[in-house]
Amino acid sequence: MADFRLMQELTIDSSSKIVLLVLDGLGGIPMAPGGPTELESAQRPNMNRLAAEGTLGQTLPVGHGITPGSGPGHLGLFGYDPLQYDIGRGVLEAFGIGVDVGPEDIAARGNFCTIDASGLITDRRAGRIATEAARPLVDKLAGISLPGVELEVKPVKEYRFVVVMRGPGLSAELSETDPQRTGAAPLPVKALDPKAEKAAHLFNQWLEAARGRLAKDHPANMVTLRGFSGDPRLPKFETIYKMRPACVAVYPMYRGVARLVGMKTIDVAGDRPEDEFRTLASVWKDFDFFFVHIKPTDSRGEDGNFEAKVKVIESVDAALPSLLDLRPEVLVITGDHSTPARLRSHSWHPVPLLLWAPQTIRPDEERSFGERACARGGLGTIRAADLLPIALAHAGRLTKYGA
Amino acid sequence: MADFRLMQELTIDSSSKIVLLVLDGLGGIPMAPGGPTELESAQRPNMNRLAAEGTLGQTLPVGHGITPGSGPGHLGLFGYDPLQYDIGRGVLEAFGIGVDVGPEDIAARGNFCTIDASGLITDRRAGRIATEAARPLVDKLAGISLPGVELEVKPVKEYRFVVVMRGPGLSAELSETDPQRTGAAPLPVKALDPKAEKAAHLFNQWLEAARGRLAKDHPANMVTLRGFSGDPRLPKFETIYKMRPACVAVYPMYRGVARLVGMKTIDVAGDRPEDEFRTLASVWKDFDFFFVHIKPTDSRGEDGNFEAKVKVIESVDAALPSLLDLRPEVLVITGDHSTPARLRSHSWHPVPLLLWAPQTIRPDEERSFGERACARGGLGTIRAADLLPIALAHAGRLTKYGA
Repeated sequence: MADFRLMQELTIDSSSKIVLLVLDGLGGIPMAPGGPTELESAQRPNMNRLAAEGTLGQTLPVGHGITPGSGPGHLGLFGYDPLQYDIGRGVLEAFGIGVDVGPEDIAARGNFCTIDASGLITDRRAGRIATEAARPLVDKLAGISLPGVELEVKPVKEYRFVVVMRGPGLSAELSETDPQRTGAAPLPVKALDPKAEKAAHLFNQWLEAARGRLAKDHPANMVTLRGFSGDPRLPKFETIYKMRPACVAVYPMYRGVARLVGMKTIDVAGDRPEDEFRTLASVWKDFDFFFVHIKPTDSRGEDGNFEAKVKVIESVDAALPSLLDLRPEVLVITGDHSTPARLRSHSWHPVPLLLWAPQTIRPDEERSFGERACARGGLGTIRAADLLPIALAHAGRLTKYGA
Repeated sequence: MADFRLMQELTIDSSSKIVLLVLDGLGGIPMAPGGPTELESAQRPNMNRLAAEGTLGQTLPVGHGITPGSGPGHLGLFGYDPLQYDIGRGVLEAFGIGVDVGPEDIAARGNFCTIDASGLITDRRAGRIATEAARPLVDKLAGISLPGVELEVKPVKEYRFVVVMRGPGLSAELSETDPQRTGAAPLPVKALDPKAEKAAHLFNQWLEAARGRLAKDHPANMVTLRGFSGDPRLPKFETIYKMRPACVAVYPMYRGVARLVGMKTIDVAGDRPEDEFRTLASVWKDFDFFFVHIKPTDSRGEDGNFEAKVKVIESVDAALPSLLDLRPEVLVITGDHSTPARLRSHSWHPVPLLLWAPQTIRPDEERSFGERACARGGLGTIRAADLLPIALAHAGRLTKYGA
């Protein structure tokens, strides 16, 4: 793992630039025995050229056999041990929609749900109501006020929203209210630590107020709250690595994780790879480290659509020349985890890794970017959190350790 | 990492012998895309035969992306975690020229510098004065005496020297006096801990005396002191591993690191590989573990002279039969770090590793000793500090753990 004290001691300033291009859920497996993976199937002449010039490997986002969520997957790539730095789901969701969570605040993820006349849950997602239908209901919830605290309620997507409670003496050591099954009533919030009694009491008051206000809004006539969490107080990327970091991402969640480590998020006009690369070019002079996030590889993997995931990879490959025109000293292409279309979900499989750094590379003998080649690559299989020191070294941003 | 308590528990006596042949800065990178490295370019029939019979891998001296100095690079190869055992610069320099640093002593590295009439530094290295020009100035400094302590001042090379202060109640928790830029005056020594007040006071007295004695010796008319450090109190190699260790090395620095872990240093007549191997043969019966150090691979790498580094590797290869005639049970050939001629400096790239142990080896499929082959080798990529337990095992010097 990146040892932050060591990093702070060894990092030096430089004009070099590092691009971390993350194809979300990049890694795959064959649909049939002996077949190619999504990446191996793709027409990817640019990636293959970079693979031949660079060196390959695989990353383990969290550890052997561990399937990461998006938060841990990205924290690892930013050099933070995901087992040490735990971002609560509420905070992640809040940051994802641009709602800040301060040092004294508690964020929770909310779901609209359906309850019957006796208060038992009949649908934990309120029929997956549309985002537009949820909006006025979120407005109703935003009207709830409680003594001594400020409340902010914002829609996320479909049946999901975020509540942030701000005030003195709060603690996020709280139990969740979703019973995780239908036929049961929403649970009360319980303090898991005596110092959280106040927050538990307030959230329970808020839930009763919500029940009243939504009573006639079937199917979204109640809510559950999960992932109570506070500011994880992550050490800031810029402090550790002495680079000005920028995030070029379309989706709120990834912008949120980037903001959590102190990256500046850049707005992207459009959502194609070429739009992101154009945005990257527009801020090239202002930053040293660029996290560029491509979402649809993961989405198509989760759809189980092998061919569509292949097409996303091909679209990134086709746009790569405009990124290479910027002449980064170091380009890393990898994923935050694997999302094999065959499994329709995130997985634990190691993630393909390509490191390209024309001035300093020790090449291996691999000539194409794919899972089998990466398993044989010169970088070996490394923890994702060990990737950033390697990138820094290739960018001339780490001085010698010891005499 | 080698767990020393585990090692002490598991090591057993044996008549087997282990040779650790370190080609300093062995690892390289191609000068041009797709080209060979220095090692891959060399005519190395003996190393290739050993590679075919043995197994390959790569070592990480300190960690991913970390470029090690010579101290950490060698400590790792001796099984000591270089991040845990930190040898101060002063101590390393002192040991390097054969000056011992006892448990109560403080060593500092000194630089001659140039100051102007108002005391501001105009050249931090005094025009890099020649070793011969520095010698009489070091003699002047050696004439300084202070109450209650002994002082030893010795030249190192060019503008560098070493001061060792010996006496009761000293602590090396001291700040450096080099302001790290020109246009500033040398800083006073400050105690970083109350127990270091006495040492700070004495070193400041010494610096004022030095200023007086050197006043007319422009450009070397002042000194700065860095790397104040005491005996790092490393656990002794022989205690941990139950082997009598010998160091066959020509250069003072490496003899110093070896002495720090308790190795016996053997004087070498000559500085060619065959001279070192002849020395090795002469003490073969008296020791169990032999650290043999070849310096010029690193020197030629730092010169940026690819071809000269290749020639050094070839000279080692040519001399290998005389080493093999001694019939060691285990031979390891590796480096303490990489020094690619292309980069003209130490680097973070993993280091090629060859393990040869005819009675116990599990061979891989590699047939030559080179960076690309090592990246595919059967040992994988390991921390340098994990190497020694592997060598011990192959030498029949580690018993079973657990029933």
